[in-house]
Amino acid sequence: MFGSIELGGTKIRCGIFGDNGKMLDEIRIKTSDPKDDIKEVVGFFKDKDIKSLGVGAFGPIDVDEDSATYGRILQTPKKLWRNFDLLENIKKELNLPIGLSTDVGASGIGEYELGAARGKGSSLYLTIGTGIGGSFINDGRILQTSFHPEMGHIEIAREEDDKVKSLCDFHDSCFEGLCAGPSILERTGISGEDLDKDHEVFDLLARYIAKALMTYSLILRPDIIIIGGGVVNKEGMIEKIRDNFDKINTGYVSLPRSKDYIVFPKLGNEAGLVGGYILAKRAIDKTSL
Amino acid sequence: MFGSIELGGTKIRCGIFGDNGKMLDEIRIKTSDPKDDIKEVVGFFKDKDIKSLGVGAFGPIDVDEDSATYGRILQTPKKLWRNFDLLENIKKELNLPIGLSTDVGASGIGEYELGAARGKGSSLYLTIGTGIGGSFINDGRILQTSFHPEMGHIEIAREEDDKVKSLCDFHDSCFEGLCAGPSILERTGISGEDLDKDHEVFDLLARYIAKALMTYSLILRPDIIIIGGGVVNKEGMIEKIRDNFDKINTGYVSLPRSKDYIVFPKLGNEAGLVGGYILAKRAIDKTSL
Repeated sequence: MFGSIELGGTKIRCGIFGDNGKMLDEIRIKTSDPKDDIKEVVGFFKDKDIKSLGVGAFGPIDVDEDSATYGRILQTPKKLWRNFDLLENIKKELNLPIGLSTDVGASGIGEYELGAARGKGSSLYLTIGTGIGGSFINDGRILQTSFHPEMGHIEIAREEDDKVKSLCDFHDSCFEGLCAGPSILERTGISGEDLDKDHEVFDLLARYIAKALMTYSLILRPDIIIIGGGVVNKEGMIEKIRDNFDKINTGYVSLPRSKDYIVFPKLGNEAGLVGGYILAKRAIDKTSL
Repeated sequence: MFGSIELGGTKIRCGIFGDNGKMLDEIRIKTSDPKDDIKEVVGFFKDKDIKSLGVGAFGPIDVDEDSATYGRILQTPKKLWRNFDLLENIKKELNLPIGLSTDVGASGIGEYELGAARGKGSSLYLTIGTGIGGSFINDGRILQTSFHPEMGHIEIAREEDDKVKSLCDFHDSCFEGLCAGPSILERTGISGEDLDKDHEVFDLLARYIAKALMTYSLILRPDIIIIGGGVVNKEGMIEKIRDNFDKINTGYVSLPRSKDYIVFPKLGNEAGLVGGYILAKRAIDKTSL
């Protein structure tokens, strides 16, 4: 059996998976103080006879295996978690091989191996909700260098009459600052979930998301793009994103039909835990090389 | 000995390299009719006793080894070369292992192994001249999926008073359309080479290039960025690009000092041929696995 942890900003999920990828047991914890949370997590896994563990964690986090601070949470706005050595604190209680990635890295590899990108050589996974994050996988490898991608913070060319304040502390005009949940609230006074497709901001979001997808697509050239999250999971949204994507491509790069190219996740809310399971399996292969 | 071909839009260079990476012999051909050109290329290599060949070619070109049209030039504006099966035409005369990438892929791997990125885990290589192209290397592998990147065509958020027509047939506001050589001529009436650092367009270019580098940097997270080409090789330009890059980063991602992060190529005009030599060596390793 394998253990999987999805460490999110508001909740932590832990799952036990069988060899066949089926989840056998699960707990959920509200994210609060890291020391207490990890105690609960470790307690859950301790008597479960798992061979290895996979972790997908919110970032920024040090994912560079050669780094002295590998596995440490970095400059997060969550003060209690800042500089918390996640990997070390798990390792000292559970002496197991551990595979680590970001939350979107884990979800991306879950979708790649067992979800919407199954059978594809490469895929981009993107989630657009309270924040925006993405991961790219090619030939089975999650793209990570000394750092993990920060895809949500690329600049978006604003439309001329869009003067709204960017809700990113660092960037005047980044994707997350203009299109994530808080920006929708700022733009419309209503929360992202309540925005419907007749609202003009709905169309604006679809155009901006299409622009971002095109930028990722030209740089990474994924074989498929998987998009999820609260902003995308709205009736009519993915169709509008596809239409705008086709419009701005103008045939420059030849791609699959956008209906086959820009798709929803298949694993839904389970992508992260399933991805953790994949990372756990790989952690075994790695140590037995 | 190893053979290397740099197939450019205006000239073709062929080199012979010793085991130690030293170039021993070279020819240059003006790019014209593919059949005649390949005859000359093949003639040069035929009696040279090389073990393998590496090719960096202008694109778009099919770089997907699993594709039925692997090694074929695609929809290039150069009519004679359109749909020309480059790899097949070389292979039928020289029965050797051949490694293939784009022109920027070859230059990028040259700089990665033996140039400015030596010792780094990952690097972005970018050339800004008549056109704009780039390649990304991580753990020694050139990023290529079913397609190669088209980095020059990402959208740039224009400054409000910049109304110049984009000189890209496909995109109203892409990096190449706004910043490559032809756009400088359109903007200033003078050619890119003659533009000096007191011209306001010089500053505008530095700001736009910095924006593009930031977008690549956030998505790919390279350990170093190598930039070359006629637009960048101007006194004072790289310093201005670095200043603007630091300004727009605002400390969001922690990076090396921009003077160590955004650098010139070390191999200059030889990067492409050296990269071809690396690809040739790798083609041997691959077939002997």
